[in-house]
Amino acid sequence: MERKEPSLEEVFSPRGVAVVGASPSGGGFATGVLMSLKAAEFPAIYPVNPKYTDVFGLLCYPSVRDIPGIVDHVVVSIPAESALALLDDCAAKGVRSVHFFTAGFSESGYAERAELERTMLSKAKAGGFRIIGPNCIGLFVPKSRLVNTTGIPLEPGPVAFISQSGGHAQNIPQYGSPRGLRFSKVVSYGNALDVDESELLEYLSQDPETKIIAAYIEGVKDGRRFLSALKEAATRKPVVIYKGGTTEAGQRAAHGHTASLTSSVAVFDALCRQMKTIQVDDADELIDVLVALRFANPLPQGTGVALIGAGGGPSVLASDEMEKAGLHMPHLSPEVQTELKQSLPLAGSIFGNPVDTPNMVTPEAIAIAMRVLSKVPDIDILVYHIGFHPISSWGGGRFTSPTFLEPVIDTLTQVQQSTGKSIMLVLRPALDLDRMKEFLGTQEAFVEAGFPVFHSLRQAARAMAHVVAWNQA
Amino acid sequence: MERKEPSLEEVFSPRGVAVVGASPSGGGFATGVLMSLKAAEFPAIYPVNPKYTDVFGLLCYPSVRDIPGIVDHVVVSIPAESALALLDDCAAKGVRSVHFFTAGFSESGYAERAELERTMLSKAKAGGFRIIGPNCIGLFVPKSRLVNTTGIPLEPGPVAFISQSGGHAQNIPQYGSPRGLRFSKVVSYGNALDVDESELLEYLSQDPETKIIAAYIEGVKDGRRFLSALKEAATRKPVVIYKGGTTEAGQRAAHGHTASLTSSVAVFDALCRQMKTIQVDDADELIDVLVALRFANPLPQGTGVALIGAGGGPSVLASDEMEKAGLHMPHLSPEVQTELKQSLPLAGSIFGNPVDTPNMVTPEAIAIAMRVLSKVPDIDILVYHIGFHPISSWGGGRFTSPTFLEPVIDTLTQVQQSTGKSIMLVLRPALDLDRMKEFLGTQEAFVEAGFPVFHSLRQAARAMAHVVAWNQA
Repeated sequence: MERKEPSLEEVFSPRGVAVVGASPSGGGFATGVLMSLKAAEFPAIYPVNPKYTDVFGLLCYPSVRDIPGIVDHVVVSIPAESALALLDDCAAKGVRSVHFFTAGFSESGYAERAELERTMLSKAKAGGFRIIGPNCIGLFVPKSRLVNTTGIPLEPGPVAFISQSGGHAQNIPQYGSPRGLRFSKVVSYGNALDVDESELLEYLSQDPETKIIAAYIEGVKDGRRFLSALKEAATRKPVVIYKGGTTEAGQRAAHGHTASLTSSVAVFDALCRQMKTIQVDDADELIDVLVALRFANPLPQGTGVALIGAGGGPSVLASDEMEKAGLHMPHLSPEVQTELKQSLPLAGSIFGNPVDTPNMVTPEAIAIAMRVLSKVPDIDILVYHIGFHPISSWGGGRFTSPTFLEPVIDTLTQVQQSTGKSIMLVLRPALDLDRMKEFLGTQEAFVEAGFPVFHSLRQAARAMAHVVAWNQA
Repeated sequence: MERKEPSLEEVFSPRGVAVVGASPSGGGFATGVLMSLKAAEFPAIYPVNPKYTDVFGLLCYPSVRDIPGIVDHVVVSIPAESALALLDDCAAKGVRSVHFFTAGFSESGYAERAELERTMLSKAKAGGFRIIGPNCIGLFVPKSRLVNTTGIPLEPGPVAFISQSGGHAQNIPQYGSPRGLRFSKVVSYGNALDVDESELLEYLSQDPETKIIAAYIEGVKDGRRFLSALKEAATRKPVVIYKGGTTEAGQRAAHGHTASLTSSVAVFDALCRQMKTIQVDDADELIDVLVALRFANPLPQGTGVALIGAGGGPSVLASDEMEKAGLHMPHLSPEVQTELKQSLPLAGSIFGNPVDTPNMVTPEAIAIAMRVLSKVPDIDILVYHIGFHPISSWGGGRFTSPTFLEPVIDTLTQVQQSTGKSIMLVLRPALDLDRMKEFLGTQEAFVEAGFPVFHSLRQAARAMAHVVAWNQA
C-alpha cells in the first residue's frame, strides 16, 4: 500500500513523538531529546526501548508499534543494523517522519552501508513517510514545541536555519541567542537521504513564519533543483549560505562527515552571486550577517559609515577594517567638525571620521556625536564601539548602569527613528568573569532595545558590507 | 649647559618617579599611574600638584624642583599650555625622562600646537633628558616596577611591545595575559616627538630580556633609520608588526590620532617581507602570532597540520580555514586510518584528516589520535579543539576536571617531547558566565603547561601560517 507523503508543514508539527533508544541512565542523544521535549512541555512523548517500562516518569514501550496514541514523528538513536526493522514498525504505525540521529551509513565509506541507506529510502517511499538524516540532530520547531536540545530559547523568531552539520545546527542558534536571534525552524539534515537542502529551501521560501533563511551546506544533491529552489527563495527573502568544504581538505572532511560530494567552489560562488544570496565562509560570519539582517532597522542604504567611540588605536583599526571590507568613511566637512569641536574636548581627540574623544563613554558625548553625524548626508550607518580601549573598558560598572544605558538607548532610538539611518554596536567581549558580567549586561540591554550587536570591528565591517551589498543588489 | 643624554636602558630603570597632575580625587590618568606604582611597590613615588600636600598617603610636592630625592622619570598629565614651564623644572631637577600623557599637540591639527612640540623637544635636548610621547601612556617595565596600569601582570616575560596607541599598549598585554604572554617592556610612544619606533627597535634588538619584538606603528618618522633598525632587529629576533592606517580612512584616523603621516602601504608591505618580519593587520592577530611564537615548542617545521576534535561541522570549517591560510592537511594512509579505526568508534566519525569521533573528548581517545598522528612524517602541527560542537561544549565540567586535564596534558607533553612536533589548542570562549568559568579553567591549565591556546579556528590557522612562513624563511 503506497500512502500519500506528508508535507513538510505536517512533518514540522507532529501530534506525538516517539523517542527510540531513550534510557533511564540519562546519557545519549535520545535521552537528551526526551528531556528537552519534556522541558518544552511537548504534549505526547513516547520513549521506546524494550529494556525499560519507565524512562524519567514516562511510560516506555517495547516498540513503536506498541504505542497506543498517535505518533507522527520518530526520533531514532539505535545502531544502524536495527534501522530496517524499525522502519517496518514505523510504516505499520503510520508515522509521518523518522529522524535518524544514528550515523555510520554512507558517510562511513563502506559500500554496504550506502546500500543500507538506499533500502531505508525505499521503505520510507513505500510507507509514505519522510526520513530526516541519517547522521543529524533533526528538528527544532519552537512553535510546535518540537525540540532536540535545551540550549536554544523556545521563543520563535523569523530566522530559519537548515544545516548539514548537527554541531552548527546547535551552535549557531545558541551563540546567536544572546544577540537576539530567534528561529522559526532549525533543521539538521545530515546525509540528506530523503529531505534535502532543495526541498527545505522550497518550503522555507513559502513559510510565512520565516523572514530570513540561513543554510550550512556541504554538498548539493540535485544541482538543477537546488538552482531553482535558491532562485525562488532569494527573490522572496534574504538567503545566507555558509558553504563548508571549499578547500581540498574541507571537501575531504565534508565527505567523511555527511558523504557529501561537494560541488565546484567556483560554480557555487558564481551561483550565489547570480541568485542574490549572501555567501559567508565561517560560522561566526553567518551569525554576524543574520544579526545585521535581523536588527539593522532599516537595512543600510549605502556604504557610508561613521565611527564613534573612545580610543585612537581602535579608531584606526576600525577605519582600516571598514574600508577593507568595502565600506567607506565619508570625510567630515569643516562645518561638521566645528560643530563637534564646540561641544567635545579637543585634547586626545580625533574629529575626522572616526570621531574619538576621551569622554565618548558618556551619554552626553555620544548624543552630540550621534546627532551631528546622523545629519551628514552620505553617512548611512552609525557605529558605536565599547571595550576596545582602556577608556571604554569593562569592569567599572559604567556601561551597565541605568545612567548610561537608558539615555544612550534613548538617543540611539531617536536618531534611528528621526533620520532612518542604521545604528550598530560593536562590543568587545571581556575575558574574565567580572568584566564579562558587565559586557553581558550591556549587550542584553542593546539587544532588547532592538539593535544589532557585534563582537569585533572586523566582523562588524564584514557583516555590514554583506548586507549593504545585498540591499543594493 | 648641555648634558649627555641618558640611554634608553637608564630611562627604563628610574630610581624615582614624579607624577605630575595626581590628585586625591582618584580620577585621571596621573592618579591611576600613581596607584599602579604604589600597587607595584615602586620604591620612590612623588606626586606633584600645587593644590595638595598629601595624595593617597604620599607627600605631594608643589613642583618637580621641590622634590628632595632623586627623580629620574616624570609622568605628566597637565594641560598642554603648562608643558614648557614643567620642562624647565625637569631640566633644573636633572631628570632622565619625561613622559607626557597630555595630548592636544601636533595631532590636534593646530599649527601653534605643532610649534609648541618643537619647543619642547629643544628644551629636552638642552636639558639632556628624553621625552616619551606626548599623547601616550608611556612605560611599563615590570622588572623596574615602573608601571602605568594595574591590568597587566607584574611578572616579566620575553615579549617587548612598542605601540603608537596607548589603547593597544594596554589591551594587547591585558588580552594576552590569560594566554600566557608576559612582557619585558611595553612602550606607548604616541606622537614620537623624541623617542621613536626606530630607536626603540635598535634598543630592543640588543635587549637580552627581549626575545620577541612586537610593534604597533601608525607612521614612521625616519624611513632610512627605520629600515636599518628593522633589519638589525629582524636578523636577531622574531619581529611582528601591526601597521595601523593601511586604508585611506585608517590613514586619516592615524593622522588625527598621533599626527602620523602614514607611509605607502605597498612600500611598507614590501619592506616587511624583505626584512623577514611578520606583518599582521589586526590587534587580535598580533596577540595570536605572539602566542604562537612564544609557546609553539618547537616552532612548526612545516605546513602539515593534523586536526583532532569532536564534531563534523567544525572539522570541515577548520579544514577549510587551514588550507585557506596556506597550511595543508596531509592525507592519512590506509594503514594509519586502520590503526585509528581499531581503537576509535566508527559511527559519526571522520578518519581522514581531520580526525573527528564522538568520543574525542576523553583522554583515551585524544591519546590514541595524538600518538598515531604524531608518527605521520608530513604532519608538523597537531591541533586539538574544544567548544566548537555540542559534543565538546562547555558547561558540563568535563574539561576542567583533573580526570581530563591531567592525563591530556601528560599526553600532549609526551607527544611533543618525543616527536618534536608542535602542539596547539583551539578553545572557543563561551558566552555565558557558567560556561565561561569552565573555559577559563581549561585555558589556564593548558597555558600553565606551556601550550599555545587560540580562540578561533580561523585565527589559529592564520597565526600558525605566519609562524611557519617566518620559520621557513
